[in-house]
Amino acid sequence: MAGSHYGNHFRISTWGESHGKGIGVVVDGCPAGLYLDEARIQPFMNRRKPGTTKYSTPRKEGDEIEILSGVFEGRTTGTPISMIVRNTSQRSQDYSEIASYYRPGHADYSFDQKYGFRDYRGGGRSSGRETIGRVAGGAIASLVLQTVGIEVCAYTKSIGPITIDYANCDKANISQSPLYMPDLQASAQAEDYLAETMQQQNSTGGIIECIVSGMPAGIGEPVFEKLDANIAKGIMSIGAVKGVEFGSGFQAATMYGSENNDSFFMSERGVQKKTNHAGGILGGISDGSEIIVRAAIKPTPSIASTQSTISNNGENIDINIKGRHDPIIVPRAVVVVESMVAMTILDMLFENMSSRMDRFVQFYQK
Amino acid sequence: MAGSHYGNHFRISTWGESHGKGIGVVVDGCPAGLYLDEARIQPFMNRRKPGTTKYSTPRKEGDEIEILSGVFEGRTTGTPISMIVRNTSQRSQDYSEIASYYRPGHADYSFDQKYGFRDYRGGGRSSGRETIGRVAGGAIASLVLQTVGIEVCAYTKSIGPITIDYANCDKANISQSPLYMPDLQASAQAEDYLAETMQQQNSTGGIIECIVSGMPAGIGEPVFEKLDANIAKGIMSIGAVKGVEFGSGFQAATMYGSENNDSFFMSERGVQKKTNHAGGILGGISDGSEIIVRAAIKPTPSIASTQSTISNNGENIDINIKGRHDPIIVPRAVVVVESMVAMTILDMLFENMSSRMDRFVQFYQK
Amino acid sequence: MAGSHYGNHFRISTWGESHGKGIGVVVDGCPAGLYLDEARIQPFMNRRKPGTTKYSTPRKEGDEIEILSGVFEGRTTGTPISMIVRNTSQRSQDYSEIASYYRPGHADYSFDQKYGFRDYRGGGRSSGRETIGRVAGGAIASLVLQTVGIEVCAYTKSIGPITIDYANCDKANISQSPLYMPDLQASAQAEDYLAETMQQQNSTGGIIECIVSGMPAGIGEPVFEKLDANIAKGIMSIGAVKGVEFGSGFQAATMYGSENNDSFFMSERGVQKKTNHAGGILGGISDGSEIIVRAAIKPTPSIASTQSTISNNGENIDINIKGRHDPIIVPRAVVVVESMVAMTILDMLFENMSSRMDRFVQFYQK
Amino acid sequence: MAGSHYGNHFRISTWGESHGKGIGVVVDGCPAGLYLDEARIQPFMNRRKPGTTKYSTPRKEGDEIEILSGVFEGRTTGTPISMIVRNTSQRSQDYSEIASYYRPGHADYSFDQKYGFRDYRGGGRSSGRETIGRVAGGAIASLVLQTVGIEVCAYTKSIGPITIDYANCDKANISQSPLYMPDLQASAQAEDYLAETMQQQNSTGGIIECIVSGMPAGIGEPVFEKLDANIAKGIMSIGAVKGVEFGSGFQAATMYGSENNDSFFMSERGVQKKTNHAGGILGGISDGSEIIVRAAIKPTPSIASTQSTISNNGENIDINIKGRHDPIIVPRAVVVVESMVAMTILDMLFENMSSRMDRFVQFYQK
Repeated sequence: MAGSHYGNHFRISTWGESHGKGIGVVVDGCPAGLYLDEARIQPFMNRRKPGTTKYSTPRKEGDEIEILSGVFEGRTTGTPISMIVRNTSQRSQDYSEIASYYRPGHADYSFDQKYGFRDYRGGGRSSGRETIGRVAGGAIASLVLQTVGIEVCAYTKSIGPITIDYANCDKANISQSPLYMPDLQASAQAEDYLAETMQQQNSTGGIIECIVSGMPAGIGEPVFEKLDANIAKGIMSIGAVKGVEFGSGFQAATMYGSENNDSFFMSERGVQKKTNHAGGILGGISDGSEIIVRAAIKPTPSIASTQSTISNNGENIDINIKGRHDPIIVPRAVVVVESMVAMTILDMLFENMSSRMDRFVQFYQK
Repeated sequence: MAGSHYGNHFRISTWGESHGKGIGVVVDGCPAGLYLDEARIQPFMNRRKPGTTKYSTPRKEGDEIEILSGVFEGRTTGTPISMIVRNTSQRSQDYSEIASYYRPGHADYSFDQKYGFRDYRGGGRSSGRETIGRVAGGAIASLVLQTVGIEVCAYTKSIGPITIDYANCDKANISQSPLYMPDLQASAQAEDYLAETMQQQNSTGGIIECIVSGMPAGIGEPVFEKLDANIAKGIMSIGAVKGVEFGSGFQAATMYGSENNDSFFMSERGVQKKTNHAGGILGGISDGSEIIVRAAIKPTPSIASTQSTISNNGENIDINIKGRHDPIIVPRAVVVVESMVAMTILDMLFENMSSRMDRFVQFYQK
Repeated sequence: MAGSHYGNHFRISTWGESHGKGIGVVVDGCPAGLYLDEARIQPFMNRRKPGTTKYSTPRKEGDEIEILSGVFEGRTTGTPISMIVRNTSQRSQDYSEIASYYRPGHADYSFDQKYGFRDYRGGGRSSGRETIGRVAGGAIASLVLQTVGIEVCAYTKSIGPITIDYANCDKANISQSPLYMPDLQASAQAEDYLAETMQQQNSTGGIIECIVSGMPAGIGEPVFEKLDANIAKGIMSIGAVKGVEFGSGFQAATMYGSENNDSFFMSERGVQKKTNHAGGILGGISDGSEIIVRAAIKPTPSIASTQSTISNNGENIDINIKGRHDPIIVPRAVVVVESMVAMTILDMLFENMSSRMDRFVQFYQK
Repeated sequence: MAGSHYGNHFRISTWGESHGKGIGVVVDGCPAGLYLDEARIQPFMNRRKPGTTKYSTPRKEGDEIEILSGVFEGRTTGTPISMIVRNTSQRSQDYSEIASYYRPGHADYSFDQKYGFRDYRGGGRSSGRETIGRVAGGAIASLVLQTVGIEVCAYTKSIGPITIDYANCDKANISQSPLYMPDLQASAQAEDYLAETMQQQNSTGGIIECIVSGMPAGIGEPVFEKLDANIAKGIMSIGAVKGVEFGSGFQAATMYGSENNDSFFMSERGVQKKTNHAGGILGGISDGSEIIVRAAIKPTPSIASTQSTISNNGENIDINIKGRHDPIIVPRAVVVVESMVAMTILDMLFENMSSRMDRFVQFYQK
């Protein structure tokens, strides 16, 4: 179970390092017949692209996606879809220094312990550029989900101390905010907070929330392959994520059962719940209400201010990390969270197709 | 990828319903030569057994583990270890009523949507008794880990509003507290809080913390099979868990990079970190410090006070759940969290054995 | 990927040794709603049971299957079906001697090399009794396949030098032959041949053929997960199988393309093929004609006549294996081959459900 | 389990169609520290390249492999190795006609039944060019195996009616024969036979044999993940393979136990066997002798002579397939068989590393 595969039915294999020839992904298990071309994927890529605001690294990466296989006459064929983004803006000299020491908060030391050495240029495989493959795969998963009315939507819930309540927001505002924070007043405050943080040669963290609407009830497997367990793994596999919670989340730990339980009731639209503390999942299986999940993102570990650490040779040293780094990871990670959720849900929709004899017989009867 | 398997190299398959003939697990991939018998496993089982305190259901279940295969002359043979706990104390009549409606906070509705019908007796497969198989598997994983000096230790960090700081506690006190809460003063307060909650026919939640010590650096796979991603999945797959976080966790979202980064330094004991906000994992790979993970547990959904819900026929009704239920899930779930962490870490230790050419050659050279 | 699991969607985990407490299997991924009880499974078990003819070991094993979980009110619930056959007729003393040496043709030496020691009683985990779990799982798979009109049927094609042509046989005769050889004249000859072989304290091999009818076209995955690749693995995983071939098989190696190609034509029944040298699979995907596969079974390695080998201590010795052994493995393995084929086909039917967008949308549209 | 992944620890994901932009593979799970560059892989690629003899298609494909990731300063880093071969010599017009009908012996019909439509150019994903990814992966696996003294060697054993006995051959002659048939006299006869077959606008089949030497005893998992079961799957997943056998193979079906059993004996070199009818595997686990496996390859289905079939519209028609096709698949498939065997063995060597407590403790002890 080498580390660069995700999913069972809808499965991606990603590859590539920050300063290698490119970053890529192979998507295996996409059903045949989906209309697909680069133009349908590129908008997802653009949401994680650097250089679009002053709060992301000024490196200019085109991050243009190219499809190499699996599409014929405008539709997927059911065979692997290989995609590549060529690296164009690497300035390796920026990183030559970091070959000799272990940056705090980075994977330099743990990689060396595991593999004996590492591709130190820009973090190599542990770079944030690794997520390009996730987003390309997530774009395809999102397009498949749309065909059955499922929408996955993530946004910035908090940056440092500034937090919003999505219930008061207009979804259309997500793309209006340079930080993907749909409360535009809070977004402006967060911009100020980031400007200040940058001036202090520092960085900060935040929270991403993701909502899945249009979700049918009954999706997910009991016991180990619970829908929330798989989503948690998907999100936690994104570098910089330190926590995941669903619905009332950590808050549930302090609540009474009478508060946290969601009452069912019948409406004209069928079975509904008065509240959604469960975050749309009961016993690991979707209950038909919105899935709500949050991810805690740590501050960017690369900061310009002086830090103490050790060299490869085991000497205690002080360092100043140079190069172009985001003061916050959150905004560019929004679409990455969305991608992991979309791929996970699609995978479990496929898995679920064989759960009942009546549906199996109907599928295969002649 | 049907739902009842966990792990790749050290793999368990669990089975059984609350009111069936028994609950069991098959452990495949345990190395040959481990000294094993029921006496080494039973202490783990006893920690999740009901009826041991007034804060757990008074049902008396012996929960005696029996090994059916895979052990010969006192040692594991490398082949599957099948284990069973026979159900002895089911009073199915307590549950006959719940066949006709969907309990809030339970998986009744989502199971029906998935499978078309369900074994409603005591929650069937979604009952907490399902975790028996996890604990039996976790016991074996813990015994294997001990042979290389790795110890996995979980305890109750909070119950409702009462929270402790483990830094001030004596580990020996964990087993002294009926709630597995090593600050004995806080534990007594929590007992009072639970007594009060029970009187109100209510339930409450809490937080379990798990610490892994003796962990070598370099364990875990980059990208999707990160050590924290896999631990998160394992823990989130436990019913009632609503959130998982590592190290500074959700707190990291509000911190500056200069606060959250852990500085490396050289000591006589080798490479160390001044702080451990990362919770022992960097880039998905262990960094040699303690792994620290927390799980948020929701309040027991079965409460005696009146709740509104719907019947199977879609009528809005009020219900009062009868039967014997814990007012808090946390204490009995402590060993379940520990089990999932132990199995996950062992699985990744096995996976890691093929990460380097030098070690591979050394292993197979003649 | 420890060794005792098979299948991805319809997945079995088997356990148990020849002389342990029992042999069992956990079936995970069976759809909910299949009518199931022991009476539907037992007939499959009886076909591999020893002691039914003079050409199988006279050990009397009831081999009675018991269902422990996963069935409620007569139907599968979609959760794991645990089944057990208790061992009743072990005479361990027969085997005490073999602890000290390596039997030719058995797994004694290779197990010791892998695990450092072995459960030597009756072959332990490498005993033919291990196949009990396969047959119980195969029985369930066969019952599911029947609901969509797919039938898997295996029989004895050859024993030593005696071979039959199924085209000339009546299927009803399979169960009329004590050797499951539907040409009853050949079956009588084979009985004579076996009697002679037994008199010479020897054993012999044979060929099992399996035919799958009612197979829809389009099942199987391209490239590595080809339908024939998976069936080959399933069959080759049965102890004593030394070769697998499909359709014209090894014969194809000497044929011209013009002979081996199967021409398509249209009939009233739709697309058909004039011949079936392909054995029903083209490019790893079923073509709608019968699937035809054959397995070569080696002679029983346990023979009474004197053999030379080595002891555990590395001494060259002569041995005479005692105990009760079949002179031929083939007849009892017929249902095992059938089981592996049935489980493999069902697994790939499940996998195939997500191959096309149109069917996916139809499945999930509201 | 979409179809284009192979292996668990050493895992490849292949992609690409005959007439797309290229063919590629991602190798995940190669240990860090292997010396690797294109020059070490290209010789394997050249062995399956078309256009090298008159018995392979005259299409000129450079088939030059390019490494895109996973190698740093001349060594593998432990992260995914992405490799690509760009397609350069597609003449799509040759294939435009085949869009409208189903070629006998090809996957056209079964792909259409599975996916609803297909990339018909040159067979699309079911083309033999798909094996490029296998060979690139197999090259790396072979290089890893060499470091521990394991060598995988395949050659042509038969072409149509001409068969050789490897025992009488010099291994060095394999590369001397344009057909990879080390008996050079037989190779010349086979060339004549092929010339004749080509003149008749026909094709023929043959047998590939593969021998693994230097194999340690104890490799492979019991029950379903047997070494031979996995090798069989790997080989049978190669298009055109119709049968696989080990050691005495189908011959074993007609042998007596006393003939087929291999006697162990002690020599100066340790435990040995007098014969090797088992083909080096007992109970699914290597016994330390050579692994011997054979694959039956069907005749090339594309032949120039007239064949009857049906059109996409269901009309009975006669066709003459144009284009450039090999009269025999065998010689170019030799390295493909070798690749599948090498990757399978390496995967199981990795899996085996956690089979024993003593070795596990030794690996991780500090």
